[in-house]
Amino acid sequence: MKKVGVLGNGQLAQLLTHAAYPLALQTICITATDPAEILKLVKECEVLTLENENIEIDLLNTLSQECLIYPSPETIKLSQDRLLEKSLFQSLDIPTPTFFSITSLPELETALTKTGLPAILKTRRFGYDGKGQVIIRQIEEASQAWQTIAEAPAILEAFVPFDFEVSLIAARNPSDEIIFYPLIKNTHEAGILRISECPYLNVHLQELAEKYMHRLFDHLNYVGVLAFEFFVQDQSLITNEIAPRVHNSGHLTIEGFNVSQFESHLRAILDLPLIKPILYSKTRMHNIIGSFPALARADYQHAHIYDYGKSERPGRKLGHMTLFNIQS
Amino acid sequence: MKKVGVLGNGQLAQLLTHAAYPLALQTICITATDPAEILKLVKECEVLTLENENIEIDLLNTLSQECLIYPSPETIKLSQDRLLEKSLFQSLDIPTPTFFSITSLPELETALTKTGLPAILKTRRFGYDGKGQVIIRQIEEASQAWQTIAEAPAILEAFVPFDFEVSLIAARNPSDEIIFYPLIKNTHEAGILRISECPYLNVHLQELAEKYMHRLFDHLNYVGVLAFEFFVQDQSLITNEIAPRVHNSGHLTIEGFNVSQFESHLRAILDLPLIKPILYSKTRMHNIIGSFPALARADYQHAHIYDYGKSERPGRKLGHMTLFNIQS
Repeated sequence: MKKVGVLGNGQLAQLLTHAAYPLALQTICITATDPAEILKLVKECEVLTLENENIEIDLLNTLSQECLIYPSPETIKLSQDRLLEKSLFQSLDIPTPTFFSITSLPELETALTKTGLPAILKTRRFGYDGKGQVIIRQIEEASQAWQTIAEAPAILEAFVPFDFEVSLIAARNPSDEIIFYPLIKNTHEAGILRISECPYLNVHLQELAEKYMHRLFDHLNYVGVLAFEFFVQDQSLITNEIAPRVHNSGHLTIEGFNVSQFESHLRAILDLPLIKPILYSKTRMHNIIGSFPALARADYQHAHIYDYGKSERPGRKLGHMTLFNIQS
Repeated sequence: MKKVGVLGNGQLAQLLTHAAYPLALQTICITATDPAEILKLVKECEVLTLENENIEIDLLNTLSQECLIYPSPETIKLSQDRLLEKSLFQSLDIPTPTFFSITSLPELETALTKTGLPAILKTRRFGYDGKGQVIIRQIEEASQAWQTIAEAPAILEAFVPFDFEVSLIAARNPSDEIIFYPLIKNTHEAGILRISECPYLNVHLQELAEKYMHRLFDHLNYVGVLAFEFFVQDQSLITNEIAPRVHNSGHLTIEGFNVSQFESHLRAILDLPLIKPILYSKTRMHNIIGSFPALARADYQHAHIYDYGKSERPGRKLGHMTLFNIQS
């Protein structure tokens, strides 16, 4: 049986593993940290992918000499750095918040006069789920904010007074087949995704998001699933960020569609035919965060409940619940 | 996380394991043969189920003192014995082929004069995939047939000149919720299921099959998925046999429906709410038997391909392929 390597064994790797079975594939979820050990496992695989883009690029470059890696190390490198990422959006004429590179407190103070207030200071690297970022509401907070992110290389972004966020999930294979899911509407609390709902029906915004995605796919010669997060402001989209992998907001594609984001990702990286997503019914996902609730019989009435098997910790994603076939 | 025990680790146990994940469940697939070791594992489980009805009843009775077992050992015992099974059908006014209990050659020869020819001699126990049965076409073959089944306790059945076979898959939970899937049309070769197609649309036969299933559920106080196989003759159904478990012909419920037979079985045995099956699209399954074919890219166009990871052997079920969203 063909094997697909996945760097990591969190929930995204688990969900990829389940999607692998009906494609006559096995996954090898790699948790080793020793490069030689990783290399040994990778040599058994047709292709290597990852569930988390914060992987050392040197390691990926080494592994890429032994095995196909999708998405490519170049793309991973780009997505690790908010400055590179936002600069690419800008060069591709994809709207972003106004942003500035920040390497010192004076730079930050100057930039704040251009973005206006409030503004958001974000480390260039290792940010997720609201980590590595701080809102600056008054100019006097600049020094404190600079300390909060430990004077790490950063970007300052103008605050976007958005109505809500949406994500577009899409996949491309090496044969240049491309599929798009309908837009998903996302609700966050304290920087962590709480609820995703699909479909968010808006023909204009769907076309706009797909147009931007096409530009990225073409420029990056991208292979795999890519998630694109946008702020929605009236009838326009402003990019938040991309995730070069399957995405939390796409978990509802398992129940809501004929083909999940996990299957689409595996099909893409193995250059198998992609399947056009067909929505079965309106679907909503709730993340289970921090502690796992006691489950009642009624919770299962129209729901799937995923328990990732992780220990409880404030802010930690422990599972999710998908409501399908819902009316409202 | 709650655990469900499954006796066995073949493809049915594998498919149950995948269905367990979105119900916040883990399976323990038990392959031990030492009763003490089995008992130790079973004690961790909320409920125990099985993928093969040919389990020693004494063992099940012992285990039932430590853990709920669904379907019940009484039902399993019944399904192990073609004579008990067919006698029950008869007592519930569910049509069966004419049959006779056979314990000796003279009994066989007498019975053949009543069934007419051809007729089928089947061992009462351990028959599956065409094993343990022999067709008798002429009265002179009786002695040879009796030798072929090693003079084991048997039944002789009149041959039913059927048009084709269908199966009804249904589930019942302890709260007496019941769901039915649409009839599935099955094609066999050499006694082994080759192709299943769903739906087989015939309102009259669907109602008839559900009526018979209701009688069995009520009589057995059945819990779990039950598969009922019928010969179709004009507009009537004649029972072939039952399987007190998820069934090969129901594999297409994974792709074809909002809820698979595997999820329905888990919901039933845990007394979770059952979900009414909704057919997404016409679906066809092909078993992969004996040897695993080389797969081409095009095979994945509208298909899922399951590889159970078993070694090749003539007549062995190694995997299956499900075609979904098909037009013809």
